[in-house]
Amino acid sequence: MSTIPESAQLGNHTVIEKDVTIGKNVVIGHHTIILQGTQIGDNVAIGCNCVLGIQPNTNQRMRKISQIDNPLVIESGTRIGHLVSIYSGAQIGKDVFIGDHASIRENVSIGEESVVGRAAIVELNTRIGKSCTIQTLAYVTGDTTLEDHVFIGPCVSMSNDKYMGAQSYSLKGPYIKKGAKIGNNASLLPGVSVGSNTIVGAGSVVTKNMEDNIVVAGIPAKQINS
Amino acid sequence: MSTIPESAQLGNHTVIEKDVTIGKNVVIGHHTIILQGTQIGDNVAIGCNCVLGIQPNTNQRMRKISQIDNPLVIESGTRIGHLVSIYSGAQIGKDVFIGDHASIRENVSIGEESVVGRAAIVELNTRIGKSCTIQTLAYVTGDTTLEDHVFIGPCVSMSNDKYMGAQSYSLKGPYIKKGAKIGNNASLLPGVSVGSNTIVGAGSVVTKNMEDNIVVAGIPAKQINS
Amino acid sequence: MSTIPESAQLGNHTVIEKDVTIGKNVVIGHHTIILQGTQIGDNVAIGCNCVLGIQPNTNQRMRKISQIDNPLVIESGTRIGHLVSIYSGAQIGKDVFIGDHASIRENVSIGEESVVGRAAIVELNTRIGKSCTIQTLAYVTGDTTLEDHVFIGPCVSMSNDKYMGAQSYSLKGPYIKKGAKIGNNASLLPGVSVGSNTIVGAGSVVTKNMEDNIVVAGIPAKQINS
Repeated sequence: MSTIPESAQLGNHTVIEKDVTIGKNVVIGHHTIILQGTQIGDNVAIGCNCVLGIQPNTNQRMRKISQIDNPLVIESGTRIGHLVSIYSGAQIGKDVFIGDHASIRENVSIGEESVVGRAAIVELNTRIGKSCTIQTLAYVTGDTTLEDHVFIGPCVSMSNDKYMGAQSYSLKGPYIKKGAKIGNNASLLPGVSVGSNTIVGAGSVVTKNMEDNIVVAGIPAKQINS
Repeated sequence: MSTIPESAQLGNHTVIEKDVTIGKNVVIGHHTIILQGTQIGDNVAIGCNCVLGIQPNTNQRMRKISQIDNPLVIESGTRIGHLVSIYSGAQIGKDVFIGDHASIRENVSIGEESVVGRAAIVELNTRIGKSCTIQTLAYVTGDTTLEDHVFIGPCVSMSNDKYMGAQSYSLKGPYIKKGAKIGNNASLLPGVSVGSNTIVGAGSVVTKNMEDNIVVAGIPAKQINS
Repeated sequence: MSTIPESAQLGNHTVIEKDVTIGKNVVIGHHTIILQGTQIGDNVAIGCNCVLGIQPNTNQRMRKISQIDNPLVIESGTRIGHLVSIYSGAQIGKDVFIGDHASIRENVSIGEESVVGRAAIVELNTRIGKSCTIQTLAYVTGDTTLEDHVFIGPCVSMSNDKYMGAQSYSLKGPYIKKGAKIGNNASLLPGVSVGSNTIVGAGSVVTKNMEDNIVVAGIPAKQINS
């Protein structure tokens, strides 16, 4: 069984599986499920109807994934909304905010004070720096890097499979450098890099690497000024 | 405790917090959570696994939000799907339909007979008129106005922050006039207005104000006929 | 009451309504709700906080939908994630994978070994062939056909209503032929067909029928090579 400190406030019908660690002054909403091995830091607040600490699953047509031995770790002061799913092996830094209906996969790391918006999705093996903002319904694909202070607008789309399932897997997501800003509903293709402080206009399609400190827009995205 | 009328049909493991008001002939699905102070009108039907009446939450990098004193009010005849989240201070009119996985923020008002589609998201301080349709996975940003009879296609994206987090907040969403129709996956930039009965083509990016009674398309969107 | 085999592993606070059929070695996660009449095959695994076997609901401005008499049928070996909603009258084939937060409507059929990604949505009356991949946050509208081995990239958008609610319903979704691949965040208009093995570039808007074995891109999408 897990040891639950007296300072914890648990909602009704919560499920806390075994080997869960809970810090001081943690709040867990009604019906939320904390799966085996999850580690929750001090002053973390979690909403209702969440599922945290999920082991990955697949069918035979998908990338092979082995059992994740690392737990989900949620550091102190982080706040998680309602109806959220987070996998084992994710590392959520201090004072992060994760919106309702968001989903975060295994082996993702999120730096301190970053924000993952409502219904945003972060796929496996992705690294997100400090003080990043990922807005509502944005899709951060697997095998992606966001350096610090990156802004991803609402409904931004990324992909990491240039052969769209036609070849054996060699997946590479975008690499987005410090301070870059991606406008709403822009699309980033597999493996592209976006330079530091570069701004990508709304609705653009980024098909190749973009330098630092420029503004790009259009389909395909081209420099419009600097 | 809340008073639950005999005519209410409650599913298993529902959670009804204190000061909740429930009208006649209300149906609430299994595992649904009605948080403190929520007001539910007559003949309202709510699905399973919902969280209704949420107080807002933030981290230190996000817009300051104070405790919402107004309750969530759901007027008579409205139907709410499954796995839905709705905040305190939202006012949902009569005979509204809200699809599964949708999320509606604080201080939103939705006029009677409007439809909010499956997994659609409506952010804070937004006003939606009567008989509007917001289709599946559409994103209606904060500080936005939809007049009556507006149609928002599937996967439409909006933004309300022209500086993408780089300056202190002065947020303004789109203003969409009566009877306008926005095609699927179109993007609307912060503060643009779309005229009455104007049609925006699928995949367009609207970067400036559009007149009444025209048809626009492309990136950036331009008039193609009237 | 439903008969639950001894081989079933049920989580905490599951709700199994009446007339549910459960095969051998089925796993059902915490708080999951299996509604009346649902049929679950052998070796099916279902995550936490799901709602399966939903009857459709509407308001008076939406397409009329009658009570669905056919049950939700989930065939053997299929795996379903967490926080998923699936309707009555859907037929999910063998060894299918359905990601977390996905939603599948009534009268949908999904062929064996297909994958429906995280937060992807499949609307009513849609037929999906064998070994298809529908990626994260993709939107497959109603009255759509995907033949076998189709690939739908992340955040793809489709629509089925060319009058955007302005006329009485005559809805027709896209028809996507065998082996076609749709790039991320592309938009498909009502009733278009995409030819066999044809590739649609990321961010494209497909406004008319596309032949077999070509590559198309842009707004509107045009052939760029073959």
